[in-house]
Amino acid sequence: MTVFRVAEIVEALQSVRQQWREVQQRSLEPGGRELPAREALAEIVDTLKGVLFPMRLGPPELRQESENFYVGHALDAGLHKLLAQARLELRYRARRDDPDLDEIERRAETAVHAFAQRLPAIRVLLDSDVLAAFDGDPAAGSVDEVLLCYPGVLAMIHHRFAHELYRLGLPLLARILSELAHAATGIDIHPGAQIGSAFFIDHGTGVVIGETAVIGERVRVYQAVTLGAKRFPRDAAGKLEKGLARHPIVEDDVVIYAGATILGRVTLGRGAVIGGNVWLTESVPAGAHVTQAISRHETRPAASARAGQHGQQPAGVPS
Amino acid sequence: MTVFRVAEIVEALQSVRQQWREVQQRSLEPGGRELPAREALAEIVDTLKGVLFPMRLGPPELRQESENFYVGHALDAGLHKLLAQARLELRYRARRDDPDLDEIERRAETAVHAFAQRLPAIRVLLDSDVLAAFDGDPAAGSVDEVLLCYPGVLAMIHHRFAHELYRLGLPLLARILSELAHAATGIDIHPGAQIGSAFFIDHGTGVVIGETAVIGERVRVYQAVTLGAKRFPRDAAGKLEKGLARHPIVEDDVVIYAGATILGRVTLGRGAVIGGNVWLTESVPAGAHVTQAISRHETRPAASARAGQHGQQPAGVPS
Amino acid sequence: MTVFRVAEIVEALQSVRQQWREVQQRSLEPGGRELPAREALAEIVDTLKGVLFPMRLGPPELRQESENFYVGHALDAGLHKLLAQARLELRYRARRDDPDLDEIERRAETAVHAFAQRLPAIRVLLDSDVLAAFDGDPAAGSVDEVLLCYPGVLAMIHHRFAHELYRLGLPLLARILSELAHAATGIDIHPGAQIGSAFFIDHGTGVVIGETAVIGERVRVYQAVTLGAKRFPRDAAGKLEKGLARHPIVEDDVVIYAGATILGRVTLGRGAVIGGNVWLTESVPAGAHVTQAISRHETRPAASARAGQHGQQPAGVPS
Amino acid sequence: MTVFRVAEIVEALQSVRQQWREVQQRSLEPGGRELPAREALAEIVDTLKGVLFPMRLGPPELRQESENFYVGHALDAGLHKLLAQARLELRYRARRDDPDLDEIERRAETAVHAFAQRLPAIRVLLDSDVLAAFDGDPAAGSVDEVLLCYPGVLAMIHHRFAHELYRLGLPLLARILSELAHAATGIDIHPGAQIGSAFFIDHGTGVVIGETAVIGERVRVYQAVTLGAKRFPRDAAGKLEKGLARHPIVEDDVVIYAGATILGRVTLGRGAVIGGNVWLTESVPAGAHVTQAISRHETRPAASARAGQHGQQPAGVPS
Amino acid sequence: MTVFRVAEIVEALQSVRQQWREVQQRSLEPGGRELPAREALAEIVDTLKGVLFPMRLGPPELRQESENFYVGHALDAGLHKLLAQARLELRYRARRDDPDLDEIERRAETAVHAFAQRLPAIRVLLDSDVLAAFDGDPAAGSVDEVLLCYPGVLAMIHHRFAHELYRLGLPLLARILSELAHAATGIDIHPGAQIGSAFFIDHGTGVVIGETAVIGERVRVYQAVTLGAKRFPRDAAGKLEKGLARHPIVEDDVVIYAGATILGRVTLGRGAVIGGNVWLTESVPAGAHVTQAISRHETRPAASARAGQHGQQPAGVPS
Amino acid sequence: MTVFRVAEIVEALQSVRQQWREVQQRSLEPGGRELPAREALAEIVDTLKGVLFPMRLGPPELRQESENFYVGHALDAGLHKLLAQARLELRYRARRDDPDLDEIERRAETAVHAFAQRLPAIRVLLDSDVLAAFDGDPAAGSVDEVLLCYPGVLAMIHHRFAHELYRLGLPLLARILSELAHAATGIDIHPGAQIGSAFFIDHGTGVVIGETAVIGERVRVYQAVTLGAKRFPRDAAGKLEKGLARHPIVEDDVVIYAGATILGRVTLGRGAVIGGNVWLTESVPAGAHVTQAISRHETRPAASARAGQHGQQPAGVPS
Repeated sequence: MTVFRVAEIVEALQSVRQQWREVQQRSLEPGGRELPAREALAEIVDTLKGVLFPMRLGPPELRQESENFYVGHALDAGLHKLLAQARLELRYRARRDDPDLDEIERRAETAVHAFAQRLPAIRVLLDSDVLAAFDGDPAAGSVDEVLLCYPGVLAMIHHRFAHELYRLGLPLLARILSELAHAATGIDIHPGAQIGSAFFIDHGTGVVIGETAVIGERVRVYQAVTLGAKRFPRDAAGKLEKGLARHPIVEDDVVIYAGATILGRVTLGRGAVIGGNVWLTESVPAGAHVTQAISRHETRPAASARAGQHGQQPAGVPS
Repeated sequence: MTVFRVAEIVEALQSVRQQWREVQQRSLEPGGRELPAREALAEIVDTLKGVLFPMRLGPPELRQESENFYVGHALDAGLHKLLAQARLELRYRARRDDPDLDEIERRAETAVHAFAQRLPAIRVLLDSDVLAAFDGDPAAGSVDEVLLCYPGVLAMIHHRFAHELYRLGLPLLARILSELAHAATGIDIHPGAQIGSAFFIDHGTGVVIGETAVIGERVRVYQAVTLGAKRFPRDAAGKLEKGLARHPIVEDDVVIYAGATILGRVTLGRGAVIGGNVWLTESVPAGAHVTQAISRHETRPAASARAGQHGQQPAGVPS
Repeated sequence: MTVFRVAEIVEALQSVRQQWREVQQRSLEPGGRELPAREALAEIVDTLKGVLFPMRLGPPELRQESENFYVGHALDAGLHKLLAQARLELRYRARRDDPDLDEIERRAETAVHAFAQRLPAIRVLLDSDVLAAFDGDPAAGSVDEVLLCYPGVLAMIHHRFAHELYRLGLPLLARILSELAHAATGIDIHPGAQIGSAFFIDHGTGVVIGETAVIGERVRVYQAVTLGAKRFPRDAAGKLEKGLARHPIVEDDVVIYAGATILGRVTLGRGAVIGGNVWLTESVPAGAHVTQAISRHETRPAASARAGQHGQQPAGVPS
Repeated sequence: MTVFRVAEIVEALQSVRQQWREVQQRSLEPGGRELPAREALAEIVDTLKGVLFPMRLGPPELRQESENFYVGHALDAGLHKLLAQARLELRYRARRDDPDLDEIERRAETAVHAFAQRLPAIRVLLDSDVLAAFDGDPAAGSVDEVLLCYPGVLAMIHHRFAHELYRLGLPLLARILSELAHAATGIDIHPGAQIGSAFFIDHGTGVVIGETAVIGERVRVYQAVTLGAKRFPRDAAGKLEKGLARHPIVEDDVVIYAGATILGRVTLGRGAVIGGNVWLTESVPAGAHVTQAISRHETRPAASARAGQHGQQPAGVPS
Repeated sequence: MTVFRVAEIVEALQSVRQQWREVQQRSLEPGGRELPAREALAEIVDTLKGVLFPMRLGPPELRQESENFYVGHALDAGLHKLLAQARLELRYRARRDDPDLDEIERRAETAVHAFAQRLPAIRVLLDSDVLAAFDGDPAAGSVDEVLLCYPGVLAMIHHRFAHELYRLGLPLLARILSELAHAATGIDIHPGAQIGSAFFIDHGTGVVIGETAVIGERVRVYQAVTLGAKRFPRDAAGKLEKGLARHPIVEDDVVIYAGATILGRVTLGRGAVIGGNVWLTESVPAGAHVTQAISRHETRPAASARAGQHGQQPAGVPS
Repeated sequence: MTVFRVAEIVEALQSVRQQWREVQQRSLEPGGRELPAREALAEIVDTLKGVLFPMRLGPPELRQESENFYVGHALDAGLHKLLAQARLELRYRARRDDPDLDEIERRAETAVHAFAQRLPAIRVLLDSDVLAAFDGDPAAGSVDEVLLCYPGVLAMIHHRFAHELYRLGLPLLARILSELAHAATGIDIHPGAQIGSAFFIDHGTGVVIGETAVIGERVRVYQAVTLGAKRFPRDAAGKLEKGLARHPIVEDDVVIYAGATILGRVTLGRGAVIGGNVWLTESVPAGAHVTQAISRHETRPAASARAGQHGQQPAGVPS
């Protein structure tokens, strides 16, 4: 019968936790966990998707004539669960000070209340995103297919919720929502990014949009596009400066094709078209078309189609 | 005790739903949901994976001597669930006309029956894909490891099912299957793409293969490869034209390394090798090796390895 | 009532399984499944995450004063589940020979015992990774947010477990752990890669790190970076040679920005900085800054911002 | 490796099923199951309990201000699930004839509609039952404790639903509801029994109330009471005659103590009190108190309290 | 498409709820549910069973060498869940007054703390119950079979927990525990009953033991035994008087066979044996054997064994 | 924050477990649990019910044309799970000796193999039980209703499985099956009881049938009937003698009405009818009708129907 000297390892683990807590100046008083939970937020966002789109993302047995009952019940349940998570974030962030619990409660309620008020407007924005995807993709069969299937739409549902939470002083909840979408779609939009209506991301894997990016209306973006920062200024003490506007401004009706990388606080003027794989660190005027310089390719006939497999092959992969 | 004015928000949400339905000319009659369900298709594909590979992807307690009982039971259950989803898609697409329910039933049954007949052939194709991965990856320990672990193989299982459904007039079900694989692997293959046997995608994150792509036998593709369209022609009314052949043809034994982008209805001739990061919009003869033009790099010594952290850093990321 | 001729298809499927088993020289004796299970490993890694970080990734209701009870119980349960999977891998790999079950048991226990001893050191390494992320990302709010949300940290938790298993002769279990992280994050690190402390991957989608890569301390890597092999040498018989050192060595304090591709057994010297999208197949001295050659862009004013939508558009996407 | 000759047993089982179906003249055509499902009805009754008592038997997170949303949503869902089961019962019972599906649909909808209309009245009746239990049991702490804990109340919730279904022509659904309560409480009330308001069953295990029993208002009954039939008349063909009034009539304000057995179409007059263990097969006038004849007990001193354990013990148990 | 006029019924239900709340003088302020939950207590009792008998009723994968870790973790989790339920009961019972939340917290913690201290003693008592069952039943194969299978033991596990809670001022939690056992076993023991060690209930269905019963050591009881009250005195206002000693005292080593009914504050002296079906309302001296008076049976030969089925049958059942 | 001194209680619990193990002479070596699991057997019996009655108790989506696939798969899975439990029982019972694992394996396989062979015969017996219930109960609507709803039929399904296991040397598994039925129905049949075909138990709560009872064909039994032992002989050492024939023999076509108690190795002759509540400790000839002596009832008019509620009430209940 196997014995793994569990007690010894438990002790060693306790000792490394202790070290961490001392370095991090964590309270060593007994107590429970005070962090918001990823699973709880996943459930909340599922509920809210059903609230916004009851007949398409709500429970399958729902019927139109009793939608409002479902919406009301789910909304109430979802908001109270969100309130509980909001409390956790606010208490967590107030931790080192002596927290004013009444103030935390007041702020949590205010934030969730404001969030709730925004839901109809969020639905309108998401409708515009769905239509933009339908209009922009020749392969889209219907608006419902788009809502059901498109990862870009899923990412925007999460983002539009997350952005409200970010604005309302709940950045950790916002970030968890974003990462849930990132895990499901490969699309990484920081909750801080401001994105206008009718935004369409096609395919989406590898898209990264930074915290201070500002995106206009009717913008279209393809897979692996980065809207990033060019530099991270550090202050005198060598610490990263936070909150600086460091990501691109993308005006209305811009299209950015797959793999393009736009870095820094540059502006892509209204209606500009950025070609695939373009690397761009400066502004572009309205209406401009930017394409990659034509790469010269070295094309040489191979001795035989299978030859490469017997000698050394050129490769671009780890394996 | 918190009250969120739920009733008000319910009303506002109803009003925006109303608007959407009017704009979309949706029927406002009472009734239930008529859309296929992502969860149902996830379950179906799980069942069918067990049907094709009972001892490796079926239930863990299965024994070889009673495989056929399991296969028969799971197949029957899976096909009837698929039939139910097929009905939903066909009714949904017939929605605006007065649907002929008998005709829908007949078409759903015909499609699922034809799908079922294809399953043995699909298994043979997938066996060839598994072997291709095993042969093509020095890190692969065994064919079973490949079937169990490789995201490229998972993507192909979904694709080979999805492609049949697409061919049989069930494009929405097909698309849902594709997106399930996309979410799990970062590999986005349109169900319309025609792909020959022994296809191997390594690593896979960011691979995109378009609807009208045609891929031969024994083709190998690495992560972040795009087989895309070059242009989207629009008709006189400004609408995207659908169904045009607009993606590459890749002949037998071609290898395409990571990050290469091939756009438009070009042909990569038999045995061609396309290097990493290549951007290609024209055809390539059989046996050709195309590599990226050598980029000149500007390499300058930094004052010190840590220096960058005290000033402004060059960056290519959003953060 | 629909009948799908299930019996016929069952027979056809049996026949293709038969073919495969003959080609693969699989035993046709009755018997159960002998493969490790992805679901079991997912559960094990979840348990071990709770063991290492009980108050943050353990059960929500846990309290600090009884951490050790939880850690001990979960550790014991997790190790025994791991032992069961280790047995399965060792038996599976010994399959074709007449397996010495006592030897397998001994090796499984030795491996899991050694793995267990490493857990405190793994926790220390992961603490350094968390701190590196917190220090390296201006958007990070707290170390707990980093542990909870960052896909790069999740990938490293899996990697640090997987690397131990790989070292201890359990490469299949290791690979399954890696692929679980790959599916969740888009980050694909081979379990063989050696990675020093305080490693930070930001955003992460599309990162690929190969089997023989060696990475120093305090290295930072952004999305879509590849540390790959340049060639796959094959032996006289045309078979891929395994186990050769074929991936980069990255020394301490190196930073590699998004989309950079480093191929082959090259060395990036201490403190080097590799710019975004750089394609690199040769070594770089300590302290060097490598940036992409400035691409010339062809920028032409478009007739109108919307014009492209009425004619033919340049595109870089499949759709 | 064990083989259980599964195929042989499967064949033998098929052959005994075949025999049964022939004897029962069951259709041998292919087809699915047409029986209502116990699990479905358990779920329906759970839903309806929440509909009637939202704050006490509904979901724990419910709040009073949004009760109506919950009640509306749950009611709609519950009624449609009940409709599905009603269809199954009606089709099942019409089986041997060529079923008129439209007629079945019409009857199912009519029945469920009528059932729904009765729900407020059922709630009022159940409130009276709860109050009766609270008033009748010195151990009852509050009306909420009674609703939450008392098996007699659970049995009456099921019965009051089941009786409506029985009246509306759905005796099989009604029976399933009764048996669900029987399994949970040991109280077996036939759905046909007519029971007035403020009915209280204390303890309840072993209570049996027959199909044609008629019970007035404010009646109290204790454990192991039987209201049964005295004889089962058979017709000339030796078949049991159905539907005859064969169980007791119990008028208002009657109390029946534990273990009493009342058989046949007798009448217990208003306010009668029937003592424990009484065996009664004739009517009793209003206000009568019936007690068991005093049994003479043979009381003999035992040699010693422990003596019985060394010799032969008198026993009344199987063991 | 069916519409059930859900809105109308919702309104009618609201109106009957309103009536109830007015009659019951319930607060109509918005707010959540404040009642302990049956499901929560079922989970707590399952946890505590594992705490007391880790290797037999704990998780199947547990090993003896790490029992204490499991016990500690489960105990901590179970006690905190119990604390939450204790708070709910105390708040609920304080409801009509302005509750002193600090006082409630203090009382809840005190009670759960005292409960926890009693667990080792409860385990000792339950061990004695298990041994008593093993010694008293010729069909018992082992002590473990008894613990695993015997409904009487399950009932005593619940009772010994429930009695502590009752004593500690948590009668509603206690009652819920009792009713959980009642539903599972048909044995209904009021939490107030005082029961000595080595108590054995065989078969058990229909056993009822009242609130003020006092039972000595080594007592044995068979199915359908009632230890009940003879009368319920009411006060001048017609209300039941609570808390009076109204159930039997059963001294050490008494045996009560199946179906016996003992009513009122009588005493069964040490070592008394009460025969099956005895009806007893007076005290019995130590060592007495009480058996039922011999009933005379009317035995008449039936014309034929099957005859009864053609005429009218005597019956004692409802059907 | 509450601390419950968990460590102290853990220690105290360990100490009482230690005592128990010493008294019970349990091995104190480390190791896992070796007991069969109630949950596992519940799952097995559910599977086997589906195997015997696939279209009525199998999965709802099953269709007749693929029954055999389901039956074969479920049978194989169920038998192997049963084999695992059989091993546990045999190892457990061999515990104190040095167990011969090969012998245990051989016996487990032999037993489960023999059990499997009996399944078709068990189905035939159960069909006769279902028909007996249908014929014997005027309230039975159809044979399917009987199979779906009647607790007596559920008890017989469990019993007919349990009796085979008992005969095959697996009494603990058998007992667990019996107790599962006992919990669900209140019917307690010892697995050892021999019961002929066409056995019908109506209502059933409180029925107890002892280990050595022998019951013929076409016997009918109502609720609360006991077929028990009269005495438990003890041997010279004071230990209960096991295995003696101590319960009644009930010949063909006997009917026993509710509440009758038959004790000891008596014989109820063919066709005898035993009336309700009869207490019987001697044999009865074929064709006899035994009814209770007419109890004299003391019937006195009460002053008023409600009067009892203002004074002291006669009662037969604990409350």
